[in-house]
Amino acid sequence: MARRKKGWFITLEGGEGAGKSTALVALRERLEDAGHTVVTTREPGGTSLGRRLRNELLHGEHVAPVAELLLYAADRAQHVAEVIRPALERGEVVLCDRFSDSTVAYQGHARGLDLRTIERLNGLAQQRVRPDVTLWLDVPVEVGMGRARSRGAADRFEAEAVQFHERVREGFVELAARNPKRIVR
Amino acid sequence: MARRKKGWFITLEGGEGAGKSTALVALRERLEDAGHTVVTTREPGGTSLGRRLRNELLHGEHVAPVAELLLYAADRAQHVAEVIRPALERGEVVLCDRFSDSTVAYQGHARGLDLRTIERLNGLAQQRVRPDVTLWLDVPVEVGMGRARSRGAADRFEAEAVQFHERVREGFVELAARNPKRIVR
Repeated sequence: MARRKKGWFITLEGGEGAGKSTALVALRERLEDAGHTVVTTREPGGTSLGRRLRNELLHGEHVAPVAELLLYAADRAQHVAEVIRPALERGEVVLCDRFSDSTVAYQGHARGLDLRTIERLNGLAQQRVRPDVTLWLDVPVEVGMGRARSRGAADRFEAEAVQFHERVREGFVELAARNPKRIVR
Repeated sequence: MARRKKGWFITLEGGEGAGKSTALVALRERLEDAGHTVVTTREPGGTSLGRRLRNELLHGEHVAPVAELLLYAADRAQHVAEVIRPALERGEVVLCDRFSDSTVAYQGHARGLDLRTIERLNGLAQQRVRPDVTLWLDVPVEVGMGRARSRGAADRFEAEAVQFHERVREGFVELAARNPKRIVR
């Protein structure tokens, strides 16, 4: 069962209001102009099952922290199996708004769940699919939160305190330090 | 944070149509007659989030096997945090229709997912809550499937082939052999 990956997998990461959506549109245009077939997608919610999970994750009430972590992993497993891996096997470029690094930063660094557990879960959900390059959009927490707030009603993460988002940013700082080849700031 | 468990946690396990629901009602009556406060619950679907996940698990289309496993774990994590642990801490008896053994039998033995991964996920979801006793209702696969079929439209698991259910039963046989003190046939 040789599943040779031919495409290119690019993820965008960052805190709230970092400008990922705008960057994703611009990047897509450049890649398409260069002749690539591009699939843009996001987590959570890149599949039909995932869109229902996204609703639980961003707007659900009383989601236990470990259940939250496992729902992100389930969303990712379905996303990899149904969207990302097939596109890569067709030789396409996959542009994904958030991926495993967000789980490390948000559920690990900010929520305080065990980082080794998160890495194992990411491994299980990804089934050997890994980003070729990750673009980290780093903006100061106050700036990002201000932008996110101006978009209207806050989701469960946008509603967290400034300290939470500072820990998210520290998570990305550490991830970038540990993955200097993959993560571009 | 000493979380001393005072109640009693009983799980019911078995294949399709094994008679778990009937046994659960009878057991509940006996325990209540004996003066216990009893919480009856089930997996998947013992919480409000869990009921929505149950719908995905039993009736969803194209759920990837690893996503299925992770959704069961998410359902369990929420169930333990929201229902089971609080009831045990109040000193009540929790009667649960299916728990971690079903994940080992169905996703492990029958679907063929890695048993060590499943054990780790169960450990993560259970957060140190373990059944005191497990009643395994063992009926021949043909008998159980006949009963399940007579109940009407089949869910995703009832619709699996006989061989699948034979592997589920083999899973329970092995679990019982490995846990002779906890699992009562």
